[in-house]
Amino acid sequence: MRAEDVQRLRAETPGCAEVIHFNNAGSALPPARVTETVIDHLRAEAARGGYEAAEAAAERVEGVYASFARLLNASPEDIALTDNATRSWQAVFYALRLGPGDKILTCRAEYASNAIAYLQSGATVEVVDDDETGQLDVADLERRIDERVKLISMTHVPTQGGLVNPAEQVGAVAERAGIPFLLDACQSTGQLDLDVTRLRCDAMSGTGRKYLRGPRGTGFLYVHPRLRARLEPVMLDLRSAVWTSTGEYEVAESARRFEVWERNVAATLGLGAAVDYALEIGLPAIEARVCELAATLRAMLSGITGVRVHDQGKRQSGIVTFSVDGMPSAELRAELARARINTTVTGATSAQYDFTARELPDLLRASVHYYNTEEEIRVLAEEVDRLRP
Amino acid sequence: MRAEDVQRLRAETPGCAEVIHFNNAGSALPPARVTETVIDHLRAEAARGGYEAAEAAAERVEGVYASFARLLNASPEDIALTDNATRSWQAVFYALRLGPGDKILTCRAEYASNAIAYLQSGATVEVVDDDETGQLDVADLERRIDERVKLISMTHVPTQGGLVNPAEQVGAVAERAGIPFLLDACQSTGQLDLDVTRLRCDAMSGTGRKYLRGPRGTGFLYVHPRLRARLEPVMLDLRSAVWTSTGEYEVAESARRFEVWERNVAATLGLGAAVDYALEIGLPAIEARVCELAATLRAMLSGITGVRVHDQGKRQSGIVTFSVDGMPSAELRAELARARINTTVTGATSAQYDFTARELPDLLRASVHYYNTEEEIRVLAEEVDRLRP
Repeated sequence: MRAEDVQRLRAETPGCAEVIHFNNAGSALPPARVTETVIDHLRAEAARGGYEAAEAAAERVEGVYASFARLLNASPEDIALTDNATRSWQAVFYALRLGPGDKILTCRAEYASNAIAYLQSGATVEVVDDDETGQLDVADLERRIDERVKLISMTHVPTQGGLVNPAEQVGAVAERAGIPFLLDACQSTGQLDLDVTRLRCDAMSGTGRKYLRGPRGTGFLYVHPRLRARLEPVMLDLRSAVWTSTGEYEVAESARRFEVWERNVAATLGLGAAVDYALEIGLPAIEARVCELAATLRAMLSGITGVRVHDQGKRQSGIVTFSVDGMPSAELRAELARARINTTVTGATSAQYDFTARELPDLLRASVHYYNTEEEIRVLAEEVDRLRP
Repeated sequence: MRAEDVQRLRAETPGCAEVIHFNNAGSALPPARVTETVIDHLRAEAARGGYEAAEAAAERVEGVYASFARLLNASPEDIALTDNATRSWQAVFYALRLGPGDKILTCRAEYASNAIAYLQSGATVEVVDDDETGQLDVADLERRIDERVKLISMTHVPTQGGLVNPAEQVGAVAERAGIPFLLDACQSTGQLDLDVTRLRCDAMSGTGRKYLRGPRGTGFLYVHPRLRARLEPVMLDLRSAVWTSTGEYEVAESARRFEVWERNVAATLGLGAAVDYALEIGLPAIEARVCELAATLRAMLSGITGVRVHDQGKRQSGIVTFSVDGMPSAELRAELARARINTTVTGATSAQYDFTARELPDLLRASVHYYNTEEEIRVLAEEVDRLRP
C-alpha cells in the first residue's frame, strides 16, 4: 500500500484525527462511508417509518449478501446476516446437537465463548497440540481423528495473540475425514484474504465491527450447502421458517434459516458498506499492510528492555500482544489511553487453554489496521518505553 | 392527552411532517431524541473507537436496565437487553426444554414465531378456547390444566387484531397452578401500562421498534428470579457465563445470562431514550390516548359501506384490522401508500390458529399511536371510502 493511499484512507476515517487506534481487534474505526450509511438509513426510518424505509432499501439489503459472497468466494444463499459473530457461531454449533459420547477437536488458542459452549454440550473436548511455532499441529489433529469426532472447530486468529492458525490444512484434514469444520473467523475477516473454497470450511462465523470496520451489533455466517441441508436450527421463528398450516412449518432453504425476523437494517446496510469498502481496497493489499505493520510493531517492542512480546505462530496477524515487566497491563493500558492511544487488555477468561498452558499474565493487546501508520507505531513504542518501570 | 401535548409530541417527531403513520405495530416513528441519541453514539464510536465509546457510555447503558425496571415495575437484575423480541422470547422458551409428553397451553391469537417453536419442541400444543368476546377464555384455561402442562404461553396483543388478552387473569391462574407463564408483550409494551407484579408473568418479551418508538434491532426480556434460577440458557458465551477454568464455567446470576457479549450500543442507548420518553409522558396517558384513537378509527371504518372491522376482544388495543369487500388488502395498502398513508397487511402465516378459525382473508392493519391525530384518522377513513370498489 502506497503512503498516499494510506493518507487517503485515513482522511476517509474521522477517528484517525482523534486517536491513535490500536484496538482494531476490539472494534476498528469505521470509514465515514460506513457511519454515514447507517445514519442516512436511521434518518429515513425516522422520516417515513422503519418498515417503509426497509422496503425502499430492500435491494441494497440483498446486496449485502452478495457483498459477503464476493468477500468469501461463496454464494449469497450460503450467507446469513446476524447481530454478532457469537450468534453466528452458536447457530451452527448448537444445531449440530453434540452431546456425551461425541468428541470435538479444537485448538489451544480457542476463544472462551466457543469453549464454554463445548463444555455445555457435554461432548468430550480434545485440545489439539500446538506445533513448535505455536500454531495448531496438523499432524496431531490427524492422529486424533476417530469415529467419535463429530466436529473440528477452530479459532482462526485468536483474540489473545498474533497467531494465524493453519485453517487451509485443517480444512483439508476435515474434508478427507468427512467431519464438519467450523471456523471462527471473528478476528481474521477483514484483515486476511479469506476464501471458503480454499479454507474448505463447512461453516464460518465473523463480525462486522472488527477488521471489517463495520458497525457494532453486526455479524455474518457462511454455511456450506452440504452442512446446511442437515442442520435444523435449534431455534426457529417466522423468518427462519414459515408456518404453513396450524400443525406444520417449513424451514428456509438458504442460510437464512439461521436468521431471525427483526434486524437493525441501518447497521446491516453499514455492514454492507464496510464489506464493499474492503473489497475496493482489496483483501490481499489489506493483509500485506496489516501484517507488515504488526511485524514492525513487534520488532520495535522487542527492542525495549523489560518488554516481552508473546505472539506465536508460523504466520502472524495484525494482533500484537506483550507485557511489561513490573507493570500490570491494565495500568499500562490506562496510561496509554491518557495519551489517546487505544489498546486493550486480554486475559485468561478469554482463552483459558492458552493462558493456562503458557502461564501468561494479562496481556496488553495492540492490534493494527491498514490505516495505522509507522509514525503511530513509533509513538506507541516510545510511550511504552517511557512508561515502563 | 391535551391537543397541545399531542402537537408538542408531533413536533418532536420528524416523521409526522412526512407521512401519516398507521404502521406503529410494525415500527413506530421515533422521537427525534431517540434517533439523535443513536446517531450521537455512532459518531462517538467513529471518533474514538467502538469499545472506547462504550466505556464512556457504560453508566448510561446500565441506566437502560433501570429504565426498563421502572417501566415494568421490576428490578434491573430481571432485565436482559437483546436484539429483538423473538430472541428474548426464544431465550426463555427453549431454555424450558419442553418435549414430547409436555403440554403447552396457548391462545388462538398466538403469534407465528411462537407457534413454530412449539411445534419444533415436540410438546403437545393446546389452543385455549376464546370466550364470546374473542379473548382467551380464562375458565377454559383453568379446565385444561393438568400435571402435563409445563407452560402457559400467550401473546398479549396479537399482531393481527385489536384484541388485548386478559393477561392478569391468566397470570393468576398460572400462579395458582405453579406453571410458568410466558407473556409475549411485543405489541403491548409501550401502548399499555404493564406491571409484571400485576401481570404475574414469569417472563415477558418485547421489542423496541414498535409502540416504544425505539430503534430497530432492539428488544428486552424480563425474567422473574424464581424462573431464572432454574433456567440454564440453551446457548452460552462469555457474557452469559464466565470461563473460570479450562473445564468449568459459571452462568451469570442476573437475567444477563440470556444476553450475548456483542451488542449495538448505539441502538441500546436509543432504546433507553425511548423508554425514558414513554415514562415522561406516562403509560396511563399513552394507553388512554391510543385506545381512544383506535376506537374512533373503528367507528369511522364501520360506517363505510363494504368495510368490515375484524377486531375482537372485551378490551381493545391500538391495532385496527379491517377488510374491504372486493378489494385485496395488498392493493388497498399500496393505494394508501401513494397517499403517504402507512399501513400494512397481516395474513395467515403470522397467525394460523386465528386466521384458520375465523376464516379470514388477508387484513389491512392500521395501528395508531398517541401522536396520530383525529384528522389523520379522518383522512384514512376518507381514503378508504374513496378507494373502495
